[in-house]
Amino acid sequence: MRRTFLTPTHHKKRIERLKLQLDELGIDTFLVLNSKNIFYLTGLNFIPTERPIFLLLHKGDTNFFVPSLEIDHVEHQVPFVSQIFSYFEYPDEKHPMKHLAKVLLDEIGITINRIASEAPGASGYWGYKGPSFEEATGFKFKLLPDIIMDMRVIKDPEEIELMVESSKWADCAHKYLQEYTEVGANEIDVTLRASTQGSADMMQELDDGYRPIGFSLFPAIAVYRGQIGPNSYFPHALSKGLVFKKGDTLVTGASSNVYGVQSELERTMFMGEPTDRQEELFNAMMAAQDAALATAGPGVNCAEVDRAARNSFKEAGVFHLVRHHTGHALGMEGHERPFLDIGSKDVLEVGMIFSCEPGIYEQGLGGFRHSDTFVVIEDGIDILTKYPRDLSTLII
Amino acid sequence: MRRTFLTPTHHKKRIERLKLQLDELGIDTFLVLNSKNIFYLTGLNFIPTERPIFLLLHKGDTNFFVPSLEIDHVEHQVPFVSQIFSYFEYPDEKHPMKHLAKVLLDEIGITINRIASEAPGASGYWGYKGPSFEEATGFKFKLLPDIIMDMRVIKDPEEIELMVESSKWADCAHKYLQEYTEVGANEIDVTLRASTQGSADMMQELDDGYRPIGFSLFPAIAVYRGQIGPNSYFPHALSKGLVFKKGDTLVTGASSNVYGVQSELERTMFMGEPTDRQEELFNAMMAAQDAALATAGPGVNCAEVDRAARNSFKEAGVFHLVRHHTGHALGMEGHERPFLDIGSKDVLEVGMIFSCEPGIYEQGLGGFRHSDTFVVIEDGIDILTKYPRDLSTLII
Repeated sequence: MRRTFLTPTHHKKRIERLKLQLDELGIDTFLVLNSKNIFYLTGLNFIPTERPIFLLLHKGDTNFFVPSLEIDHVEHQVPFVSQIFSYFEYPDEKHPMKHLAKVLLDEIGITINRIASEAPGASGYWGYKGPSFEEATGFKFKLLPDIIMDMRVIKDPEEIELMVESSKWADCAHKYLQEYTEVGANEIDVTLRASTQGSADMMQELDDGYRPIGFSLFPAIAVYRGQIGPNSYFPHALSKGLVFKKGDTLVTGASSNVYGVQSELERTMFMGEPTDRQEELFNAMMAAQDAALATAGPGVNCAEVDRAARNSFKEAGVFHLVRHHTGHALGMEGHERPFLDIGSKDVLEVGMIFSCEPGIYEQGLGGFRHSDTFVVIEDGIDILTKYPRDLSTLII
Repeated sequence: MRRTFLTPTHHKKRIERLKLQLDELGIDTFLVLNSKNIFYLTGLNFIPTERPIFLLLHKGDTNFFVPSLEIDHVEHQVPFVSQIFSYFEYPDEKHPMKHLAKVLLDEIGITINRIASEAPGASGYWGYKGPSFEEATGFKFKLLPDIIMDMRVIKDPEEIELMVESSKWADCAHKYLQEYTEVGANEIDVTLRASTQGSADMMQELDDGYRPIGFSLFPAIAVYRGQIGPNSYFPHALSKGLVFKKGDTLVTGASSNVYGVQSELERTMFMGEPTDRQEELFNAMMAAQDAALATAGPGVNCAEVDRAARNSFKEAGVFHLVRHHTGHALGMEGHERPFLDIGSKDVLEVGMIFSCEPGIYEQGLGGFRHSDTFVVIEDGIDILTKYPRDLSTLII
């Protein structure tokens, strides 16, 4: 089954799963603040600003608390909404938290010890200031900052299908990135051209199935982010408008946004035939990625996957060039818990999705890192990004 | 003077200004956590992840605390750095906060009652978990969450010059957006084409003066964000891949990133000759924006500017269509304090930069909102976005 967006049926299932947990904890009323968590549970796609926007789950009802500019936007997007409570604006003459207190105390009627929230109060985003929920209402809120993220650690089958689709379009955009890369071109130009063409292909094939989510202008992206030539030495370089030269080591990135789910694909490429040292480091990186992927599977400790990559780098005599662990979970955010890291206490479970991206970095020469997205399945893992990994294909 | 980036000389001046305030407060050691604040003070352009990255100001020294993947990146970007303290990775076998405690207690030597931070601990971004600074060190940290944002409220002359440049390229990209908009085109295609062409113009003219900052792929953008036809009724619509039709009311957006500073430009446009009602609401919006701009100036209350727009809408009999206040400050963030809002207690001061964007929204017909960026100067205001505002120019 090919899936490119979710429907209210899926969202209601997620809310139902959360409600079972809240019931067990004895919580009647739960304030969800995180915009990705609100989208995950309801499909509400909105721009977070200084104006507080909360999902207000109460005894099986899906309510919202929003500024006036979002009232109709919620109604338009969330067909199963119960009630929309609102305030005019922030800061306004009456603070939104005073409106919230009235809603909770007078309109909904909260019960002592049966109310929880993701944080003590709205975040200080974009200039917002205000009292905590406890200060505003006089009620103590149980803090459940992790309950939804804990749900999101194991991807449901629908989210995995979205990630399969996202990986496909990362591959597609990356093909154009490689095709457009040439000596004398500027990384920004190539990034914009490849992302435009990959996005056009994606929009054309998905057609009505394409649902843009969030702020990203491109449906699919394939990018250079400054990891070009000696600058690829910096694992988290940022774009500098660099120009490709013969001999450069390149590290790329690609993804696409399929209903908020974003895969991760990265490749190490070379401008022309690599030197012996470039090839040696490329092979060491590939061996480490192979070792990590061969280790990963259900029931395996996250730490073991990282250790497999580390041991491979040690055997190749390049462990001193390592600057980070082997990978991280991902889904609706670029990085999520858990991490493929020797310090992790987590275990890989069916339905978890990770990047696998062991890297090495040699000053003056550059960085060597592939990243692939994989999902843990019953009998091992399934690598979702399919772009070729072998050296010969990646020479420009 | 035309300025497109800042130099270490500017950054050091900002740190010096902050240090004077810290000295007055009796603070020797200050941990800066917010990535935009770190960039503002040092020019360090980095990707915030779950790995804690702090600027650690200590008795006139500019130190950093970073994961190993950022050590050389800091050294490369901040020539006046004093010391770089580091940990290998997060989560790792030893938590970064244990490394931080060692740095603060053993290597730097903090003093009781003379240490402060922007927050109680690193934020829970992208899966990070950890103890607060107090839990990690046993020292109580004075919380100064607003001290740098308070500095940033009054833009220094250099930041104003960057905003002048940013406004110019918002205008430029918007010109292409209008040019490419036609019946049957898709909002995403037009957005990508206009942003690509505006970015190309900007990169070509700025040449070596262009310094990409942050994650934005486009140097300059001009976008549709779903505010097309009846959907423009939602003030914070998001892109839906809509197709332009005759009779549509459109609300656009444009900006450019000049060394992290981003202007705001929005225009209401029409697909073909507007109906009487479209023209009436357009004129009411223009009158409200004119009233607000005529009111703004140094020493004026922010509330008065909002009240001027509200009164204008009331006179036109369309106040029931208002969904938000008149504007907000901006600079390195999309929205900043203070707000042009009847509830604001702030006063406009020379050097503040605001958007002015009173809007009205009629269900079934659409939204009517221009947004312009202005700076408060000695004898009034200077409107930095110059794109034509008049109806006849904005009919497609």
